[in-house]
Amino acid sequence: MTTTALVALNSPYPFWQLSDRHAEQLRSAFPDVRFLVAHEHGVPVEIRTADVYFGWSFDRDWLDASPRLRWTATPSAGVDHWPVAALDAAGVTLTRGYGYHGRPMAEHAIGLLLGFSRGLFTSARLQTRSVWWKDDLAASFFDLHGETLTIVGCGSVGIRLAEVAQALGMHVIGVRRSPPPSELGGIEWVPRHRVREALPRSRAVVNLLPATGETHGFFDESTFKACRPGTVFINLGRASTVDHDALLDALDTGPLAGAALDVQPSKPPALDDPLRHHPRIVLTPKSAVFSHAYMDRAIAFFRDNLRRFLTGQPLNGAVTPTHGGPYDFH
Amino acid sequence: MTTTALVALNSPYPFWQLSDRHAEQLRSAFPDVRFLVAHEHGVPVEIRTADVYFGWSFDRDWLDASPRLRWTATPSAGVDHWPVAALDAAGVTLTRGYGYHGRPMAEHAIGLLLGFSRGLFTSARLQTRSVWWKDDLAASFFDLHGETLTIVGCGSVGIRLAEVAQALGMHVIGVRRSPPPSELGGIEWVPRHRVREALPRSRAVVNLLPATGETHGFFDESTFKACRPGTVFINLGRASTVDHDALLDALDTGPLAGAALDVQPSKPPALDDPLRHHPRIVLTPKSAVFSHAYMDRAIAFFRDNLRRFLTGQPLNGAVTPTHGGPYDFH
Repeated sequence: MTTTALVALNSPYPFWQLSDRHAEQLRSAFPDVRFLVAHEHGVPVEIRTADVYFGWSFDRDWLDASPRLRWTATPSAGVDHWPVAALDAAGVTLTRGYGYHGRPMAEHAIGLLLGFSRGLFTSARLQTRSVWWKDDLAASFFDLHGETLTIVGCGSVGIRLAEVAQALGMHVIGVRRSPPPSELGGIEWVPRHRVREALPRSRAVVNLLPATGETHGFFDESTFKACRPGTVFINLGRASTVDHDALLDALDTGPLAGAALDVQPSKPPALDDPLRHHPRIVLTPKSAVFSHAYMDRAIAFFRDNLRRFLTGQPLNGAVTPTHGGPYDFH
Repeated sequence: MTTTALVALNSPYPFWQLSDRHAEQLRSAFPDVRFLVAHEHGVPVEIRTADVYFGWSFDRDWLDASPRLRWTATPSAGVDHWPVAALDAAGVTLTRGYGYHGRPMAEHAIGLLLGFSRGLFTSARLQTRSVWWKDDLAASFFDLHGETLTIVGCGSVGIRLAEVAQALGMHVIGVRRSPPPSELGGIEWVPRHRVREALPRSRAVVNLLPATGETHGFFDESTFKACRPGTVFINLGRASTVDHDALLDALDTGPLAGAALDVQPSKPPALDDPLRHHPRIVLTPKSAVFSHAYMDRAIAFFRDNLRRFLTGQPLNGAVTPTHGGPYDFH
């Protein structure tokens, strides 16, 4: 019986859309698979005959209408918006993507870090009104070379970030729930429950934690208090893992020197949100994963998994309800 | 006869000063050398008995008062403020430093580049007043990975910058007057007179040219016109190598997407200078070479050269009036 794959990759941005070229690639790579390319409103109808669904999001209700569904795939790294438990209960596999979010996110994190360490954000803000802000920068800049970066939730994205940080001469501590046994990637691994041993040694902390029950409010007052004075904190993970009142306090009374947030508690933040107006906070609009190469690489990942699916091999990026599978790096 | 070395490394910034620790290091490494540590106003007197002078600047007049002087050294990479011809005519060697400006300058250049490519400067400026600028960034960001960076005046600083850019997945073209024979540093070398072959292939251009007769106004209207649309231009070299009217025009009518200037034609620029107010220019206050490790490494370079001087070996970083020596990488 023919396998039917429903693809619903819509986005306001071209780099996150399935282009005609991508659809053509899929069809020529799998001539025996029937591909349906749907717009969002078409999914509830098209899902009825689908064995496979590949899209940005999945509505819990679609499950009841899709008796043949066996596998749902998302290009995203995070699945906190997916009905993970319901899919699992229905015997439908869910896979997330990995291996291609790291490049843009590493560029974003390093750019934010250097923006603070080299006084670039201060410069961009002062250049129109300060006569000369050289003394300000001389008193506040720091070298990344020789400093330590701690990456919390250090999975495949963090490992890519570590490579770039190491090229800049930084020592990298990788924090994850269950550290790998080896010195993987030249990284010093620390288990998550001992994060406070890493923080006092670090000049920069990048948070990549996913949103799970365990990670809610992970960066709270006591975690920030464990940081070294002058630390730059960068959140490219999920907003729910950070207590933003504690963050503002840590900026105003120490120990944080600056913070960059790619995710915020409300999206977009209100125009009078203090996070927008703090002089040592930079906000980016969930753009860390922006990449013009995104869909090419997401399709390549999906193609490999579809081949596995059709030949009965285990799928890459399988997610379990407890986030406890082998692909849970966090 | 005892060698006397006069050291005059004064600066408003601790990281560019000779500390007591550095002076002690020199004295214990060279117990037979008499070290004089002078403040600026003391140099005209102390220079009378000096065989060696190590300082940030040198006044032409001091030459007549220093019959014993044989070698002057500066920690700077550039010697455009030094009386190069007069020293040469008097038979006094001048050496500049190299090998330790690269780290901070690479961090600065990459930070500026990522600040533009990831929309970080746009974010820092819009976050207080735009409801949500995600669409703006989606339309203007670009990946560094896979793009080409051209470094003009690619000496030891440029080679360090190239290493970091390569770690980010960039292809690097190194432009210098006389390219090295080999594929040094995995860089594609292009001679300076053929720079316009490199520019249309590049998404980013970093200028590291020193100020010489040959480099004055190097980046003029026709050079900018040769750039690819969307190019980011970063000047960490000398302001005199850029025609700033042509730069503003290239930003407003193409092809430049953004520019960062660590050096400006007037220092500081007037508060109404258009360079301060262009929305796609970021100015930094000649801070690219700020590094807390600076003096440690400059002293290590000088110690090695002093050992060479005392044992009659050739000095590293020797500068000739024509900038044509083996250390002229530009």
